[in-house]
Amino acid sequence: MKGKLFIVKIGGNVIDKEDELKGFLDDFSRIDERKILVHGGGKIATEIGVKLGITPNYHEGRRITDDETIDLVTMVYGGLINKKIVSQLNSNGTLAVGLTGADASSIVAHKRPVTNGIDYGWVGDIDQINTDLFCSLLASGITPVLAPLTCDIDGHILNTNADTIASEVSQSLSKHYETHLIYCFEKAGVLRVVEDDNSIINHIDSYEFNEMCESGTIHTGMIPKMANSFTALRNGVNEVIIGHSKNIMSLTEANFDLCTRISL
Amino acid sequence: MKGKLFIVKIGGNVIDKEDELKGFLDDFSRIDERKILVHGGGKIATEIGVKLGITPNYHEGRRITDDETIDLVTMVYGGLINKKIVSQLNSNGTLAVGLTGADASSIVAHKRPVTNGIDYGWVGDIDQINTDLFCSLLASGITPVLAPLTCDIDGHILNTNADTIASEVSQSLSKHYETHLIYCFEKAGVLRVVEDDNSIINHIDSYEFNEMCESGTIHTGMIPKMANSFTALRNGVNEVIIGHSKNIMSLTEANFDLCTRISL
Repeated sequence: MKGKLFIVKIGGNVIDKEDELKGFLDDFSRIDERKILVHGGGKIATEIGVKLGITPNYHEGRRITDDETIDLVTMVYGGLINKKIVSQLNSNGTLAVGLTGADASSIVAHKRPVTNGIDYGWVGDIDQINTDLFCSLLASGITPVLAPLTCDIDGHILNTNADTIASEVSQSLSKHYETHLIYCFEKAGVLRVVEDDNSIINHIDSYEFNEMCESGTIHTGMIPKMANSFTALRNGVNEVIIGHSKNIMSLTEANFDLCTRISL
Repeated sequence: MKGKLFIVKIGGNVIDKEDELKGFLDDFSRIDERKILVHGGGKIATEIGVKLGITPNYHEGRRITDDETIDLVTMVYGGLINKKIVSQLNSNGTLAVGLTGADASSIVAHKRPVTNGIDYGWVGDIDQINTDLFCSLLASGITPVLAPLTCDIDGHILNTNADTIASEVSQSLSKHYETHLIYCFEKAGVLRVVEDDNSIINHIDSYEFNEMCESGTIHTGMIPKMANSFTALRNGVNEVIIGHSKNIMSLTEANFDLCTRISL
């Protein structure tokens, strides 16, 4: 029988609020099983970038990562945010190690090619996960904490979506573990009415998801997260859950009243 | 018989020059034994700090690390510099993992107490090295790359001198390995005349060091590095060498014409 592994992704909006992040990390430390944390970027990179004279540049809601911006996010995601999370987890007694995809080639990616004239710059699409490294760290009782950065084979650091990293790492490790992928953010799950936390949809399967996309009843921001979830399930991940960061303990204890469970 | 381990410290002045750093990392990758790299900070933290409106504050040549500055160096040392080094080493085929003292509590320190009215802020003096972690990484063929940051037991990240980290890690690992500590910088060794690279002193023992300190014939900037070297030798480190970063290969191959060897 495979051992259980939780892969938890914590969103940028929680990272921006010091007290919420602290509460989340205290709860995360109490999860008794093997675990991996993947964190998003938060607004702090944009704020520091503005002070440094780096103007954010977007195409259809996606950030374009030029030379200055990849240095900025390497500093902020890989340094400031990652090490603050890691230091708190260790002070809580969780033996955590911060990683980017560059460390021991843990997540190898390639620069996204220019498509339809759009060059996203130093953005990476994942090719390979160093499964041996993650298995070895987990076997040593270490909790990897992943920043949303990958690396190509020539040593270029690349900006990669944290949801995608969480999904790909979960898929890759599902060969060795019973993997539970949990997306935590500032909402209680996928909501029928985006402003109403009581309108949680407790369960969505791929048929319902397609219907919701067609009818436009799903918030466009949720679509990539849902697509990542179905990809994960199709590739061996046992369970995908979307829920509020403050409910992380109940989500790992199979208490599913306050979350959205995804199935094929 | 203990296996051989090189602990190499690379100074800030080399880190500031992209070509020199690249050349050094290419050479470092070719060292065939177990190895650990410790890097300094470089001027880039100060440059980015100035852009962010953080004025450097020094007391007797030592930086005072206030709240803003510890965030700055966490970003720059732990993020930007560490990940650039790690990504290049991995692209060279060296399986490198970047660490701060916060990662898996690899280097636990305490905040330096206020002494004679001087508060250095978030500066850490080392209490303990997580020897098991380093041994386990080295046994897996991984090269740890250490940023000059440590962490206290309450999760505060602390700024710690890279020479001291290299010395303390070497001492701690000398129980398990035949440890060779190499300080690499932009000079060929300890020089009789600081501007003349041909005036290398090939060997210094503790008696000569004391004489040089008394007569004032040693550059004040070298004194802490030398003191760290003698502490290392007294605590089990097999060899300490000070030399030019471009000579790293010959220094690891016991070719000592172009360097300074330290002995008790």
